[in-house]
Amino acid sequence: MEDFMKIPVGIVGYGNLGKAVEKKLENNPNFELVAIFSKRNLQNTVDIKKIEGFKNKIDLLFLCGGSQNELENQAFALIKHFNIAESYDNHARLKNYHTELDILAKQHKKVALCSLGWDPGLFSFMRGLFNALGENSYTFWGKGLSQGHTQAIKNIEDVNDALQFTIPNEEFIEKVKNGENLTQSKVFHKRLCYIVAEPQHQTLIQQKITHMKDYFEGYETIVNFVTQEQLNSLKTFSHRGEVLTLNNKINFSLNLPSNPDFTATVLTSFARNFNNLKLEKKFGAYTIFDLPLKNLVDDKYKFL
Amino acid sequence: MEDFMKIPVGIVGYGNLGKAVEKKLENNPNFELVAIFSKRNLQNTVDIKKIEGFKNKIDLLFLCGGSQNELENQAFALIKHFNIAESYDNHARLKNYHTELDILAKQHKKVALCSLGWDPGLFSFMRGLFNALGENSYTFWGKGLSQGHTQAIKNIEDVNDALQFTIPNEEFIEKVKNGENLTQSKVFHKRLCYIVAEPQHQTLIQQKITHMKDYFEGYETIVNFVTQEQLNSLKTFSHRGEVLTLNNKINFSLNLPSNPDFTATVLTSFARNFNNLKLEKKFGAYTIFDLPLKNLVDDKYKFL
Repeated sequence: MEDFMKIPVGIVGYGNLGKAVEKKLENNPNFELVAIFSKRNLQNTVDIKKIEGFKNKIDLLFLCGGSQNELENQAFALIKHFNIAESYDNHARLKNYHTELDILAKQHKKVALCSLGWDPGLFSFMRGLFNALGENSYTFWGKGLSQGHTQAIKNIEDVNDALQFTIPNEEFIEKVKNGENLTQSKVFHKRLCYIVAEPQHQTLIQQKITHMKDYFEGYETIVNFVTQEQLNSLKTFSHRGEVLTLNNKINFSLNLPSNPDFTATVLTSFARNFNNLKLEKKFGAYTIFDLPLKNLVDDKYKFL
Repeated sequence: MEDFMKIPVGIVGYGNLGKAVEKKLENNPNFELVAIFSKRNLQNTVDIKKIEGFKNKIDLLFLCGGSQNELENQAFALIKHFNIAESYDNHARLKNYHTELDILAKQHKKVALCSLGWDPGLFSFMRGLFNALGENSYTFWGKGLSQGHTQAIKNIEDVNDALQFTIPNEEFIEKVKNGENLTQSKVFHKRLCYIVAEPQHQTLIQQKITHMKDYFEGYETIVNFVTQEQLNSLKTFSHRGEVLTLNNKINFSLNLPSNPDFTATVLTSFARNFNNLKLEKKFGAYTIFDLPLKNLVDDKYKFL
């Protein structure tokens, strides 16, 4: 594809994911990065307040804000003016968010590509596939750093910095692999939190974490308060996880050196479906289940 | 779906796969089995010569003959009168076969769903997906009984019975998992054959096997001649395999108690796309890359 046929795109949000998407767009054969928007006053970014001025210059926005309390509202506001692609990952709110966004997208004649990451995203795809093949699926995450849960902790007042590691309970992985027909539940995982905060705030922070709906409530959650230096030494982007069925008959696993980098890969790869949807005027919100692989895959891989 | 809305289907070929598909069609919410066709004079089957008489009674045929020298010709002949779904697995011929079938299907206003098994099929899908995500993929099969290679040996003159086990070279699996950037090649696997044949035929049979294109040529192939009783004791339907990328970053694996049963599962599950294609008059040949999961997956799994 020649340069002049590239789709002009923007990035909204310049955290780990936004930076990873920026990297994926370097020398990208499908997309041309026009601008990065941020609400913070960061180098290389344009003030998010000026985004409407880019309506005629940008065809697709990659939304890279946090899913907990930022992305939904951004999506609902921006879909009125732009096509969007994002990796929204609040599982509990997914269906409501998607339904609402679909209505808005159709109303404003826009395309929204939703929840394209590794979970939701690839893992959703595998769960749906395994179920369609008649098998119950189980998901185990980690051990790894959860970007979403880390951000959820950072959003709590008086938290200076934080990390959240998701740890699978190996005992349950073994049970599923040995054919024990369990029900997927919160006991499958522990949540290990490291937090930097002043001593006088720690009790309240701990309470807010353990009662946080969708994120921590019901999970075995271990909260450790540490110094900034200790926290820095624990920082990593790696994550892993697997979707499997009883007796390990079908298994899909990821071992990721960088969680945001892989999320950006999935997001920008599946976003290649955008052009077809736009050309066919198929406005609305789409998840990974609606996006055929044929638009992503090289022809030479289609007959292997 | 009510019974009267079920799609009337037939099965062509009553070997292991045909029997497995028959089982999948029992109490199937989407398909109603009308007849099983065979060239052999078997109980419960209709003579394949009478199949044209079923043109108005059957909407979709599941082709379950051998891929080596039966399925292609059957597909080319039957697509003139029927929509078809099959799990053709001769990788080397796949593209030519598909191209030719696509022309015929369009010409006769029929739908052909091609190569829907676990490989080609699910494994093709994973290789395409992993490549689209920027990773090189490697495939290892076994240890397990290959139905296609077993049939290829049985097709040789004077072979009374046979089994072919595909065995991965563990050394190469380890190398890929440790990040060695190899090229997928025939040295990744060995082919272990057990054959029942009279002593005077064995030398010629061995030669024919080791020189068989697409199936054995270039592979380390071990041929053992055994008694029928010894062979019977080795019979199994189990198979396994994995598609992975360097450093095991992405891995998809199958551990199948029954190879034909799982092939039948994939075939009948993805064949659920047939009705949509037919209703939209989208005639032609389709592979797994063209068939979106949304038609197979329960809505409740689409937002997990």
